[in-house]
Amino acid sequence: MPIQFIRSSLFASPKNLLRTLFLVTKLRSLAMGSYTASSQSSKLFFRQLFEKDSSTYTYLLADVSHPDKPALLIDPVDKTVDRDLSLVKELGLKLIYALNTHVHADHITGTGLIKTKSPGVKSIISKASGSKADILVEPGDKVSFGDLFLEVRATPGHTLGCVTYVTGDGLDQPQPRMAFTGDVLLIRGCGRTDFQGGSSVQLYKSVHSQIFTLPKDTLIYPAHDYKGFSVSTVEEEMLYNPRLTKNQETFKGIMENLNLAYPKMMGIAVPANMVCGLQDTTS
Amino acid sequence: MPIQFIRSSLFASPKNLLRTLFLVTKLRSLAMGSYTASSQSSKLFFRQLFEKDSSTYTYLLADVSHPDKPALLIDPVDKTVDRDLSLVKELGLKLIYALNTHVHADHITGTGLIKTKSPGVKSIISKASGSKADILVEPGDKVSFGDLFLEVRATPGHTLGCVTYVTGDGLDQPQPRMAFTGDVLLIRGCGRTDFQGGSSVQLYKSVHSQIFTLPKDTLIYPAHDYKGFSVSTVEEEMLYNPRLTKNQETFKGIMENLNLAYPKMMGIAVPANMVCGLQDTTS
Repeated sequence: MPIQFIRSSLFASPKNLLRTLFLVTKLRSLAMGSYTASSQSSKLFFRQLFEKDSSTYTYLLADVSHPDKPALLIDPVDKTVDRDLSLVKELGLKLIYALNTHVHADHITGTGLIKTKSPGVKSIISKASGSKADILVEPGDKVSFGDLFLEVRATPGHTLGCVTYVTGDGLDQPQPRMAFTGDVLLIRGCGRTDFQGGSSVQLYKSVHSQIFTLPKDTLIYPAHDYKGFSVSTVEEEMLYNPRLTKNQETFKGIMENLNLAYPKMMGIAVPANMVCGLQDTTS
Repeated sequence: MPIQFIRSSLFASPKNLLRTLFLVTKLRSLAMGSYTASSQSSKLFFRQLFEKDSSTYTYLLADVSHPDKPALLIDPVDKTVDRDLSLVKELGLKLIYALNTHVHADHITGTGLIKTKSPGVKSIISKASGSKADILVEPGDKVSFGDLFLEVRATPGHTLGCVTYVTGDGLDQPQPRMAFTGDVLLIRGCGRTDFQGGSSVQLYKSVHSQIFTLPKDTLIYPAHDYKGFSVSTVEEEMLYNPRLTKNQETFKGIMENLNLAYPKMMGIAVPANMVCGLQDTTS
């Protein structure tokens, strides 16, 4: 804990004092509180998978208490579809859904390829994305697999159609909850806001209203990580996210001055991902 | 599940029949059985961290029920020491040990650097490795942090001094158990056996006697993964590891014919890692 920082800044200004007291309270809460690093349920099977070129995380979830062992994949990548389907097969799971958190600009989604290789699987993306898929979800919708479900939360800002999928709230659902945030909230970071209908103000509001209001021990599973982190919590990001702990105005300034290069895959990936990664198919 | 494979090979030969019956039993066990994908304990805090250049996993474990929140890092990498120490600090943990599963040949260990940046941390490696460290562990030793502990198992084969650290066996220890296998057992693979006192026969025996004898739901956390897998189980590797499901003779043949390139970091990494990654220090 940055105790030294707290001490040195304690009496610098009334604003700093307030910020410091806030930090001390938060730190005490973290020091006392929720350290959970994995979610537990007798029903949920969960695997985190990584695609190295685009640093993308794909998530496999299944209800293994159900006779069919229905499973879903969040943000699969075209390059790793064979790996993912092979794992699903080995584990005896029945893949029913392939979901995207948004229209990715840095890699091609695997949902279309999965549908060709595993007929019966339905692709899912948000209606707000303007993309084609078998199921177009809206805020408040539930994506059920066996007795488990994901809740759809609208979290625009990185793109207009970004959603966060959150595991259900209920005694029979995994505890702590798990939030699959796509690019809206990354571990100690967030997605860029300068393309695809992005908006820094909207991203800020999405994270604060839809993610930081979740229980503090909620596990954050983003679509990417570039520094080798695998998971975080709402509490950790509320304390240590270098961008989203700032006020909205400061955050806007940070996002306007990132000077990022044009996404090199964008011209290929976005049109493909509007149709599940396969431009020749309809979904 | 490879049902088709089972059907087509069912009556091919008595040997195949036996193997098929074994597989069917195993598959039924997996289909019915242990799907746990994370370990649970009210005490254990756990994070998996990744270093992309060498595809190395570093593991952070802590007993957060203990007032000091004592923590340890398994297989830290020099390049990511600042990331790891920053996380330890943010989480309010007290790092007490930095462990290596073996003398790595593909990256420089972070243990020495951690000791210079965080005095009081003790480095740990096996006595059999012939390396310098603060604590040289032997098979059967326990590495305690708070009320939790890791058991040291000798698993030579990739190198002469490889060990696997396994979380404790007991009601107050994490369930299922977790095995940090280094390079001896990788997910659907294993480490090479052609350098550093390696031996394919020894590796085969190590995995079968020291890892495959653990409870089937034991989680396998290797030192590397090159395909984006994050975790496996004893049961999965006993069923699907393409090398270690073979008999010893076939395995030996596979390992002798890998035709791998000379490890490019070996000349630098091995001498450095014999002294915790810092050639100018003594441990």
